Amino acid sequence: MSIQKPKGTQDLLPGEIEKWQYIENKARELCSRFNYREIRTPIFENTELFQRGVGETTDIVEKEMYTFIDKGDRSMSLRPEGTAGVVRAYVENKLYGEPDVSKLYYIGPMFRYEQPQAGRYRQFHQFGIEAFGAVDPSIDAEVIALGYTFYKELGLKDVTVEINSVGNPACRAVYREKIQQFFAPVKDKLCKDCQSRYDRNPMRILDCKIDQKYGEGAPTILEYLDEECTVHFQAVQDHLNAMEIPIRINPRLVRGLDYYTHTAFEYKAAGIGAIDTIGGGGRYNGLVGQIGGNDQPGVGLGLGMERILLVLQAQGVDIPTAPPLDVYLIGLGETAEREVTKLLQQLRVAGLKAEKDYLGRKMKAQMKSADRYHASFVAILGDDELARGEITVKTMATGEQQTLSLEQFVAAMQKQKAL
Amino acid sequence: MSIQKPKGTQDLLPGEIEKWQYIENKARELCSRFNYREIRTPIFENTELFQRGVGETTDIVEKEMYTFIDKGDRSMSLRPEGTAGVVRAYVENKLYGEPDVSKLYYIGPMFRYEQPQAGRYRQFHQFGIEAFGAVDPSIDAEVIALGYTFYKELGLKDVTVEINSVGNPACRAVYREKIQQFFAPVKDKLCKDCQSRYDRNPMRILDCKIDQKYGEGAPTILEYLDEECTVHFQAVQDHLNAMEIPIRINPRLVRGLDYYTHTAFEYKAAGIGAIDTIGGGGRYNGLVGQIGGNDQPGVGLGLGMERILLVLQAQGVDIPTAPPLDVYLIGLGETAEREVTKLLQQLRVAGLKAEKDYLGRKMKAQMKSADRYHASFVAILGDDELARGEITVKTMATGEQQTLSLEQFVAAMQKQKAL
Repeated sequence: MSIQKPKGTQDLLPGEIEKWQYIENKARELCSRFNYREIRTPIFENTELFQRGVGETTDIVEKEMYTFIDKGDRSMSLRPEGTAGVVRAYVENKLYGEPDVSKLYYIGPMFRYEQPQAGRYRQFHQFGIEAFGAVDPSIDAEVIALGYTFYKELGLKDVTVEINSVGNPACRAVYREKIQQFFAPVKDKLCKDCQSRYDRNPMRILDCKIDQKYGEGAPTILEYLDEECTVHFQAVQDHLNAMEIPIRINPRLVRGLDYYTHTAFEYKAAGIGAIDTIGGGGRYNGLVGQIGGNDQPGVGLGLGMERILLVLQAQGVDIPTAPPLDVYLIGLGETAEREVTKLLQQLRVAGLKAEKDYLGRKMKAQMKSADRYHASFVAILGDDELARGEITVKTMATGEQQTLSLEQFVAAMQKQKAL
Repeated sequence: MSIQKPKGTQDLLPGEIEKWQYIENKARELCSRFNYREIRTPIFENTELFQRGVGETTDIVEKEMYTFIDKGDRSMSLRPEGTAGVVRAYVENKLYGEPDVSKLYYIGPMFRYEQPQAGRYRQFHQFGIEAFGAVDPSIDAEVIALGYTFYKELGLKDVTVEINSVGNPACRAVYREKIQQFFAPVKDKLCKDCQSRYDRNPMRILDCKIDQKYGEGAPTILEYLDEECTVHFQAVQDHLNAMEIPIRINPRLVRGLDYYTHTAFEYKAAGIGAIDTIGGGGRYNGLVGQIGGNDQPGVGLGLGMERILLVLQAQGVDIPTAPPLDVYLIGLGETAEREVTKLLQQLRVAGLKAEKDYLGRKMKAQMKSADRYHASFVAILGDDELARGEITVKTMATGEQQTLSLEQFVAAMQKQKAL
């Protein structure tokens, strides 16, 4: 019996992979323009990192992590998200000692043991950025602008940005009490999750799809922001307005964890039904300290690759596919076939995309293969032509044929490609 | 206490990461020219895949795998190499049903629990290619040529290719007996590993650094190749000669596992001492069947990224670093700072790499920051200039200053970059 891929994972095959490459190249190129540089952290980390950096009582850490004991008897976990590892690397490698702000991005696989469903996999992929070391609201706005520009340049339509401030620990403590008071009369009617949220993290009740009806008229965090938080939030908006990024304030947008401060944001897109959030992020001034570093501020975002692909498809956005072949070489006869091997290598070294047959197929089948690869030219070499030092080149778009000298062939193809 | 990265893993940081990006981009671009397309398989697979595809009695599977039981009680392992997963995906996705040869490449992390040492990590990275479906010797030669061209275009010096034929199962069975007969008189003197190899896989005794002295004068596989294998091996050499790839026949080059057939090869490089193998591969006509597929031939190679970086460094090969900044923007005064935010976004959307300060630093410190980023231009905007609709632009290479109208600024910078 043949072996299958693990449940909830994907093979990314030719045909599909070009979309991934295109999106990743766009991310890298955009990050370069915004002066973010790539960081790669290990696929697995000490489990404790995620307990501290994601939160021991979160669903992610409690239920969804791939945790194992390694041969050295240490508890390791496949990373369930990208930020904790980047923060760990920022601290461990003392990047906070550098004179400029650390502006980092990552792209890679993450792992959560969840029930697989459309667009949700056990191995999924994120593109994220993190900026450490600055409290300036202009960098919150820059992070938001990068994500927005990314979606826009990919061709996504109707992307909106929702922003909110979740305040600082001081004003959030006040708000927390207010929200508990508000929900106290209906506490027993809330869904099971929200009943547990009531004590642990009452702000998240506002997020709940089930209990939406009870949330109407609830006080918002914005009413309880202190002076520092109000000024910061206003400045973030001013910067975003200056950049002409369209934003909508959503006072119910909250992030779950205590280390989040000030800015929270999400991107929404049309076309994929109810699950319209395609990415988000926020400021987390408490996280670096919590993971064990010197206490540096941070702000970041994370975007799901699978989600982006879903939206691109739902919106019918065209994505470039694999580039076509420049030259398909056909050798007829054994001597000619050796010459084809030589020419093939010369074409490729000269920068052309070139191919030949490896299956001993007849000329007609080889021509069909050239068509499947969308070859611009088919070059045919028989033993007779080889003896005359010539090669026949057919331009596939026009059907036109010409005879070239073998010596000029590679240079002529190179010149054609440059046109 | 702060948390460290897992032993034997690396953080790839800005400064170092650009080398990885450069090597990977070269690999992708070269694969495109050779008409190989990327495939990505999951980071972990069912453990059974590696037992079948790498071999249950190998050190890799017996001692070095990261194996764990998932929450669904299945045994999973982080992939210790790249081929098994690609073969599994080739079979599961029925790529053998396509009319052309499947030419695939992969780049990514692999995992082995080994004692970390220079250039050897528990999470390491490989670039590999696999071509399925063709027995034609020209594709063995193409695979070898791709690896050689890759090293050469990266700038590695003195790369040599060693090739051999390990025959087919029939002629290898004959040879196996001959080699056992040869080593029988010294069997007790061989190292512990080789004593166990004597029964399991006697050909590998020839590989042993310790027992080299006993191997002198041993029969070589080439003396026992049958007609089919001799013809195939000769044709591979002919194709490589036609491509002007310098090769050296090494009749002691063996690959460990039974599914290897015909061609085996390794690349060697100068400059990193004794461990001079930087990559290798071979033909494995038995592997697809063994993993549970319909019985298709295959040939491939695998190259270690960390090894390539070691050689590039040892040989002093220059690798491009991060591209310099085009424009560093300095805003003096609060109104000017908002305008800087706007211009920054406009520059980036226009394709330029642009940066500003986020730390409230004085002008002098910002100029230093611009220097660290190797900015081509520094643009300075004060509230006075903003009122006049102007901006001052300093060309960093010459120290020359000019005043531009704010309206023309982005277009002027774009034009400069295009020069």
